[in-house]
Amino acid sequence: MTTPFKIGLIGTGRIGQVHAASIAALNETTLQWVADPFIEGAQKVAAQYGAPNVTADALELINSGDVDAIVIASPTPTHVDLISAAIDAGVPALCEKPIDLDIARVDALREKASASSTPIALGFNRRFDPHFAELHRRVQAGQIGKLEQLTIISRDPAEPPIEYVKVSGGIFRDMTIHDFDMARFFVPEIVEVTARGANQFSEEIAAVGDYDSAIVTLRGAGGEFVTITNSRHSSYGYDQRLEAFGSLGMLQATNVGPTTVRLYTEEQVEAQAPYQNFFLERYAAAYQLELAAFIASIREGVPASPGFDDGRAALLLANAAVQSAAEGVSVAVDLNA
Amino acid sequence: MTTPFKIGLIGTGRIGQVHAASIAALNETTLQWVADPFIEGAQKVAAQYGAPNVTADALELINSGDVDAIVIASPTPTHVDLISAAIDAGVPALCEKPIDLDIARVDALREKASASSTPIALGFNRRFDPHFAELHRRVQAGQIGKLEQLTIISRDPAEPPIEYVKVSGGIFRDMTIHDFDMARFFVPEIVEVTARGANQFSEEIAAVGDYDSAIVTLRGAGGEFVTITNSRHSSYGYDQRLEAFGSLGMLQATNVGPTTVRLYTEEQVEAQAPYQNFFLERYAAAYQLELAAFIASIREGVPASPGFDDGRAALLLANAAVQSAAEGVSVAVDLNA
Amino acid sequence: MTTPFKIGLIGTGRIGQVHAASIAALNETTLQWVADPFIEGAQKVAAQYGAPNVTADALELINSGDVDAIVIASPTPTHVDLISAAIDAGVPALCEKPIDLDIARVDALREKASASSTPIALGFNRRFDPHFAELHRRVQAGQIGKLEQLTIISRDPAEPPIEYVKVSGGIFRDMTIHDFDMARFFVPEIVEVTARGANQFSEEIAAVGDYDSAIVTLRGAGGEFVTITNSRHSSYGYDQRLEAFGSLGMLQATNVGPTTVRLYTEEQVEAQAPYQNFFLERYAAAYQLELAAFIASIREGVPASPGFDDGRAALLLANAAVQSAAEGVSVAVDLNA
Amino acid sequence: MTTPFKIGLIGTGRIGQVHAASIAALNETTLQWVADPFIEGAQKVAAQYGAPNVTADALELINSGDVDAIVIASPTPTHVDLISAAIDAGVPALCEKPIDLDIARVDALREKASASSTPIALGFNRRFDPHFAELHRRVQAGQIGKLEQLTIISRDPAEPPIEYVKVSGGIFRDMTIHDFDMARFFVPEIVEVTARGANQFSEEIAAVGDYDSAIVTLRGAGGEFVTITNSRHSSYGYDQRLEAFGSLGMLQATNVGPTTVRLYTEEQVEAQAPYQNFFLERYAAAYQLELAAFIASIREGVPASPGFDDGRAALLLANAAVQSAAEGVSVAVDLNA
Repeated sequence: MTTPFKIGLIGTGRIGQVHAASIAALNETTLQWVADPFIEGAQKVAAQYGAPNVTADALELINSGDVDAIVIASPTPTHVDLISAAIDAGVPALCEKPIDLDIARVDALREKASASSTPIALGFNRRFDPHFAELHRRVQAGQIGKLEQLTIISRDPAEPPIEYVKVSGGIFRDMTIHDFDMARFFVPEIVEVTARGANQFSEEIAAVGDYDSAIVTLRGAGGEFVTITNSRHSSYGYDQRLEAFGSLGMLQATNVGPTTVRLYTEEQVEAQAPYQNFFLERYAAAYQLELAAFIASIREGVPASPGFDDGRAALLLANAAVQSAAEGVSVAVDLNA
Repeated sequence: MTTPFKIGLIGTGRIGQVHAASIAALNETTLQWVADPFIEGAQKVAAQYGAPNVTADALELINSGDVDAIVIASPTPTHVDLISAAIDAGVPALCEKPIDLDIARVDALREKASASSTPIALGFNRRFDPHFAELHRRVQAGQIGKLEQLTIISRDPAEPPIEYVKVSGGIFRDMTIHDFDMARFFVPEIVEVTARGANQFSEEIAAVGDYDSAIVTLRGAGGEFVTITNSRHSSYGYDQRLEAFGSLGMLQATNVGPTTVRLYTEEQVEAQAPYQNFFLERYAAAYQLELAAFIASIREGVPASPGFDDGRAALLLANAAVQSAAEGVSVAVDLNA
Repeated sequence: MTTPFKIGLIGTGRIGQVHAASIAALNETTLQWVADPFIEGAQKVAAQYGAPNVTADALELINSGDVDAIVIASPTPTHVDLISAAIDAGVPALCEKPIDLDIARVDALREKASASSTPIALGFNRRFDPHFAELHRRVQAGQIGKLEQLTIISRDPAEPPIEYVKVSGGIFRDMTIHDFDMARFFVPEIVEVTARGANQFSEEIAAVGDYDSAIVTLRGAGGEFVTITNSRHSSYGYDQRLEAFGSLGMLQATNVGPTTVRLYTEEQVEAQAPYQNFFLERYAAAYQLELAAFIASIREGVPASPGFDDGRAALLLANAAVQSAAEGVSVAVDLNA
Repeated sequence: MTTPFKIGLIGTGRIGQVHAASIAALNETTLQWVADPFIEGAQKVAAQYGAPNVTADALELINSGDVDAIVIASPTPTHVDLISAAIDAGVPALCEKPIDLDIARVDALREKASASSTPIALGFNRRFDPHFAELHRRVQAGQIGKLEQLTIISRDPAEPPIEYVKVSGGIFRDMTIHDFDMARFFVPEIVEVTARGANQFSEEIAAVGDYDSAIVTLRGAGGEFVTITNSRHSSYGYDQRLEAFGSLGMLQATNVGPTTVRLYTEEQVEAQAPYQNFFLERYAAAYQLELAAFIASIREGVPASPGFDDGRAALLLANAAVQSAAEGVSVAVDLNA
């Protein structure tokens, strides 16, 4: 048995707590440091998982010399600086998406990130979902021949707090960004973005200038189509589905129910309980597998995947979608420029 | 286009009307004669489907010289005499099950039926159901290797009128008899019958000495098991399923819904409308295909299947089940004796 | 029993033969006249279904005074003139889609069609598919609340002959046109069309300037989104699915398999036979129900639905899609102009 | 956070290792002692999960004063003595099934077990499977009205080693015993057992006098039927299904696949990967939940369930099945005698 990696966790909000649980559950990681300016949050998480060190200052954690890797789960505006500090300290970092809402700030960090050998992983956890990962493996294995059309249906159970929507960068940057990365998991070279947004049910969201619903069509360099259907609400639970259509067939990953139990009555048959209602349940396994893959990439000395450039690409696609939806035009993109 | 077969229909009750519709729908048959002692019934059916001849006397129909084949859908006690008359007249007959409730009367006709070349078909329509027939074809084709276990689940939507139950011969002879034939469709040589009956919900049925629920285990000459699960009611519609388990795999035929539409709400997901509620809907295609197969067997000069001996075998199994359920013992049977 | 409607059938190609079968199968219709310049075709169909009259001249049929209604299944360029003649003769007509490939020709007939009380129905048979019709009924009944997103996946088993593609008007006018009408079945007032086309697998189709794949996003006047995913091939059979997503839930109509039989082996479980491979099988019921609805609208004196303006609307949407795909812009449409 | 329970594990074979993993995974338990006469096995498990104490002598473990509860996973013949010693020491015990193959030995311990307040739980883990537990909850909640028929299909992926079959007590005592307990989970008062056994595929198993396939029908005191279908092999993986049929409807728990991914090709559609192949995967959650329930019963001072009498009842049913299968008679049982 190898020595566990000592992990420093930055940020102890909802998503930080998910990572803390994953760090504790994984045999090869141990929670060594916890940082949060809201020190009570850091102390609580540290106590729960037995982390010996707590700080309000993320830089103290990064430069402690006592962490083998860090997980950045603090607010988005802090990501760029913390990644930069991690690179300076030579500490591998797994950073929650997005890198930043401002592509200029991302680009300013890009050269440094590329030049460094310190692994920087982006928290696109859905790539690690066992269902989507298996579908991806099979597409790679050629089971459906040449991939022609990828259909992503992605609906959240309920809209986020309006305060979040105000600062999130909008639906394309806070929600669709996961689907943009999923698109690139299958079709890395996206060359065109066509997006439409609508206000279908929330006057509140409309009032702050965002959409509550969106449809995106992406075109890949090989002529592939990716369609993304988004809604910020879904009465029947978290709707997360994937279909890959190719020259030889189709692969489908459907929603995940709590059990296999089906009810038959005089009203209806084959009825199942609603889907899991929250991303923490639906993607619990994905978060653990994401962390494990990050650790494996460090151990094996290979670049982390998805990495910095994947985070940047998703943001570029989101920006193009914003423009396309606003102007009613298809927008060409060059993710490698 | 060949000349349509002129069909004589005997009996214009519920099941007779089903056959009349099939005769009208099939290109190669035409309804030529209709017989029923309740002459108004015969006249009504004849008018609906344009049959030129009506009689209260089934023998007049059989001996008219004006029918190429007959369908016997009159009450069970008339079957033996009508089959006998059809053999005498050399007119092929498709007779509804059962041949008779009294095995002695069936056996008295058996030698005559065997000696005659006149095709006598028994109305075990479920063998012709497209779903079950396809499953059977695949078992025969070896898709699951050697058949080891056949599971038949067969529940009626609702119990029949109590007047019917009083004269039907009981659940094993009026309901399970279809499943006995289905068992023999896959495992012709049944050698042992074990049956249990229960009164689970109907005091009325209990009061007339019948069961409302039954479980039967059959053993085939090759060691195969067949289990039959029966109930005289089912809230969610007609429950008719089949599973064939073998050395290499399993084949399953599930229930048939009215459409593919599924509903997703905050209460439940993937809910479908209840199954078809009546055997006429569920087995509409089966009745037409049964008639077509009967006509084909006449045209091709091959024995009708299922035939007289299949009707007798089902009754022997029902009788053994009655004994097994009453005495709590497994009963050996020899269907060829 | 009412007297059957005497139907005149114009055109005896593939789709004309489908209608001939429906006319014969329906109790309330009888095939009275058959017209085709290829007279042998007309004679063959007439013989098969017992139609007493045959002509090479469609106008002779329309003006015979011996038809209660006509079905127009001749080549597209003849539709406008035949509809016009039917209106002149006061003979109700069910015309195959599209009315014409040239919107100017359609518009030239529009006023006449609107002014006339002669029922003109358009052959958008999919509205009558039992699965899609049931889904529509449930949306109308409010089962999913306010409709927000409609997802149409529509893939043909295989590309049509290249000679057809050359004259068909392209994928949006020959294939997507069905989906445009399906969109309008749920969201009649479409106000915006965004389309992308691609050449994913057929060099032959690319060579004649058409797409083999297309993605369309429609926006309704009430803010609804409709997405259409098209491919001209599908290895696993005819892929025809519909999802309606609303404020209270989702309704889904999935593909139709030949039977309910599922296979379980050491290789895979729950495997079903591929879907029906051809529109005549998949939509056989739809064609009969379409004809029955057309006859009912005549009997009841109500306008046929879908009617002339629905045919025009689908063509307008197809034209807008052609423009959108070519120019990379979303195109506003006014179907009522 | 409460202090974790110190657990002593007796037996480190296949099933012992499963329990060791559950003890380590559960927050409220810690592995304190490991006992196995094969001391290297005990040492290996202790090292893997950080247990500080190892012994070859189970009694040393039980009487160490250093365990809050024990898990007995040693060979069946040791169970009675170890349970007895646990009662003497006042140490709660979770014992693997069966208690013993000899009902006389079980009965000899019965009075002592009943008189003691020390919780004795029996390892019928399937009651804790999330799918079956949810189905049970819903039956209890009245979703299907009065339970009438329970259908248990239970097929192992492959036959066990023949050396195991020789000493296991036969299929009814080593395999069906799980299904007998599942039957009693829903219908505690079983009053009649009817069983048939067969040798369908394994000459080796036949040679040692056991069956490789069995069908059992149980009758409950309330007239309920339970049918059990067993096979010692299943090409498509572990086949574990449950259907509860009642006056108002049916509840079904189907098999569990590794992911939701389905494949569509020209060969077949909706095909999924085979089911999990081994009870450790299929019932991993069940083992953890079983342990958690055992600990909870100790904490709350309530009797463990399923308990000693449930273990005895399952053995009584197995014995009745042996007799029924051998003699071809239904056997009345009184589980409370």
